[in-house]
Amino acid sequence: MTVEVISVGTELLLGNIVNTNARFLAEKCALLGLTMYNQVVVGDNEERLKDAVYTAVGRSDIVILTGGLGPTEDDLTKETCAKVMETALVEDPHTKERIQEYFKNSTFKKITDNNWKQAMVPQGAMVLDNDNGTAPGLIIEKYGKHLILLPGPPGEMIPLFNGQVEPYLAKMRPELIVSKMVKICGIGESQVEDRLLDLIDSQTNPTIATYAKTGEVHVRVTASAPDRETADKLIRPVVKEIKKRLGICVYSTKDEETLEMAVVRLLKKYELTVATAESCTGGLVAGRIVNVPGASDVFREGFVTYSNKAKRKHLDVSKNTLKKYGAVSKETAKEMAIGGAFATDSDLCVAITGLAGPDGGTEEKPVGLVYMACCLGGKVTVEKYQFKGNRQKIREQSVVRALDLVRRTILENYS
Amino acid sequence: MTVEVISVGTELLLGNIVNTNARFLAEKCALLGLTMYNQVVVGDNEERLKDAVYTAVGRSDIVILTGGLGPTEDDLTKETCAKVMETALVEDPHTKERIQEYFKNSTFKKITDNNWKQAMVPQGAMVLDNDNGTAPGLIIEKYGKHLILLPGPPGEMIPLFNGQVEPYLAKMRPELIVSKMVKICGIGESQVEDRLLDLIDSQTNPTIATYAKTGEVHVRVTASAPDRETADKLIRPVVKEIKKRLGICVYSTKDEETLEMAVVRLLKKYELTVATAESCTGGLVAGRIVNVPGASDVFREGFVTYSNKAKRKHLDVSKNTLKKYGAVSKETAKEMAIGGAFATDSDLCVAITGLAGPDGGTEEKPVGLVYMACCLGGKVTVEKYQFKGNRQKIREQSVVRALDLVRRTILENYS
Repeated sequence: MTVEVISVGTELLLGNIVNTNARFLAEKCALLGLTMYNQVVVGDNEERLKDAVYTAVGRSDIVILTGGLGPTEDDLTKETCAKVMETALVEDPHTKERIQEYFKNSTFKKITDNNWKQAMVPQGAMVLDNDNGTAPGLIIEKYGKHLILLPGPPGEMIPLFNGQVEPYLAKMRPELIVSKMVKICGIGESQVEDRLLDLIDSQTNPTIATYAKTGEVHVRVTASAPDRETADKLIRPVVKEIKKRLGICVYSTKDEETLEMAVVRLLKKYELTVATAESCTGGLVAGRIVNVPGASDVFREGFVTYSNKAKRKHLDVSKNTLKKYGAVSKETAKEMAIGGAFATDSDLCVAITGLAGPDGGTEEKPVGLVYMACCLGGKVTVEKYQFKGNRQKIREQSVVRALDLVRRTILENYS
Repeated sequence: MTVEVISVGTELLLGNIVNTNARFLAEKCALLGLTMYNQVVVGDNEERLKDAVYTAVGRSDIVILTGGLGPTEDDLTKETCAKVMETALVEDPHTKERIQEYFKNSTFKKITDNNWKQAMVPQGAMVLDNDNGTAPGLIIEKYGKHLILLPGPPGEMIPLFNGQVEPYLAKMRPELIVSKMVKICGIGESQVEDRLLDLIDSQTNPTIATYAKTGEVHVRVTASAPDRETADKLIRPVVKEIKKRLGICVYSTKDEETLEMAVVRLLKKYELTVATAESCTGGLVAGRIVNVPGASDVFREGFVTYSNKAKRKHLDVSKNTLKKYGAVSKETAKEMAIGGAFATDSDLCVAITGLAGPDGGTEEKPVGLVYMACCLGGKVTVEKYQFKGNRQKIREQSVVRALDLVRRTILENYS
């Protein structure tokens, strides 16, 4: 079955916002085994919107529209779709009640008249309750086509899709699509592809696709099967083989687990604590660790030691080392990690010092040179990197590598 | 004149990537005074691409296509556009030479045959040299229409657009479009609109538009005029009036200046240093300050004190305060700021302590409660916030408010 996405909103045509809804829906539809050939963006204009809906209904089985369901006169999606599908708008008592309820719990005590417009729905349409706003989602089935209308704000659209549209679409397919993500760090996309090439080329069910992220590579294994159990059976040996080939580089096989979550999981598992000592990353490694709810069990403190003086004072880096080797050196990184572990009484400490630029680079120490060290039980691993890109890119890559260094250090010593 | 964007690429239809090119081009075209009614995404498929180009040429004066200009057989944009516009492909000796040159400086010494395909251009087309890849940009002018073909990778597309397409499009308009951004922090979008409503409604040239960002509001003032000087003359009084009405909330009127850049600029201006003492933001405030090249002049060190013990050890927060008022309290925030300024010998110190959730909230201290304090010369300002949203949102908003607190503290004491 084919599916098309129409994003309605002048703010997209003016470039005020990025169309993340289209990406979300495209990925979801691909995972549901639906084929998408077209995506369209139109403004809040009846004539052009009508054109887009006519064209979409003509060439696709399912049309998903986002945006233009609000209470104002600009919002025309529902009215236009009803016209194209030749259905009347009727009041839905259930939605009317929900709107009253919504405003009762809101700071706006008075319901302006235009809000009642939201209770009008195309005759015979399925109404999808929206827990995060007043505009319900709608599904119109007619002439063998499926029009799915969703509100534009991602905070309303995504829960509606996940909770009500995904099960609806999944039922339309005889086959179930199941996928598993293998998340990889510390190796480039081309190397991953190289090691998996024969698998990628020979596999048709499940299929294998690689995605490059900042400092990471994600490999999605997707199977199509009549039921969950069969799909899992197809996926399992392929994931096992990928893990075997990539070894320690695989940090997770859970869709929702980020690198920092994997790091915190390992720290908790082995009852370890970690500290951070950051120069060029300026607190971002600590910031990533604190992203994880419950990070306080494993992380208590970190230092941002941007100046040499701060490195000496808090991390006990020796004056001599800074003078002889410089702040960006493997010797300084090593002393930062040792000093940070000691000062915080943590089991591990990861230290980062580098040249993020744009100024300060020399021939011997060019911009992008970053040293990082991880101290565990007095033993220190030091790594040297030469990153490419601007200041931000260098720092982002450093953060990922530093988190991964902690992960590898734990695994190499404890598993 | 109307313009339409066609993004070519199966990876967009599969949801592998977000269409940031469309947003970039939409914003640029709006600033050039061009009207965009449609954006379209199609895959690397000749028939559907041809349909999209025919439709676009039929309804728009200018069509910008991105993607599908690579050397492989999948790449069809140039061939398809040439067919629709009824022009032959001919070899461009200049481009051929550039490709040879490109590979001479590359690690790939051998030029595979398919690369020569890149030297073929539609007869009579303008060739736009691409300094970041082998596919040149192309402009086809025929039948009163303008087809602009650009490579898909943003690192190639954006420089080509800025350097060669923007001047080309600007020349097609008799009027020049000039805009100025007023960047605002510490006040919500609806309040900004409220204070500017009469200006927004009455102004036609320049126009005023507001954009909500995380913790910030940006107001764009856009004028259309025959020359730069006239445009500036139209913009100046409006920007002045906006600044007057929003006062200290305006942190910048430079497009490229971020909040952290404004903070570092002020610190440098008054020769001040700043330190950070972070709990729930976990190093992200320091990380934002270090974003700014040359931040080392004003920022030397920061603490991430996630545990109570760390708050006591590094920031000298008293045991009694933590026991009596708790870690998330105005008293603790205050002592963190004072202690941080003292420990680092900095002029200012900003401290943040809060409940980012999802757990740990109580009726008295719900998730989203954040205290921040800024100490300057022994004087401390403490602010209390109740943020909404998930852990990440709460932390993002806290970071913006903390940076803004530093900015306001400096301005209130020095200007």
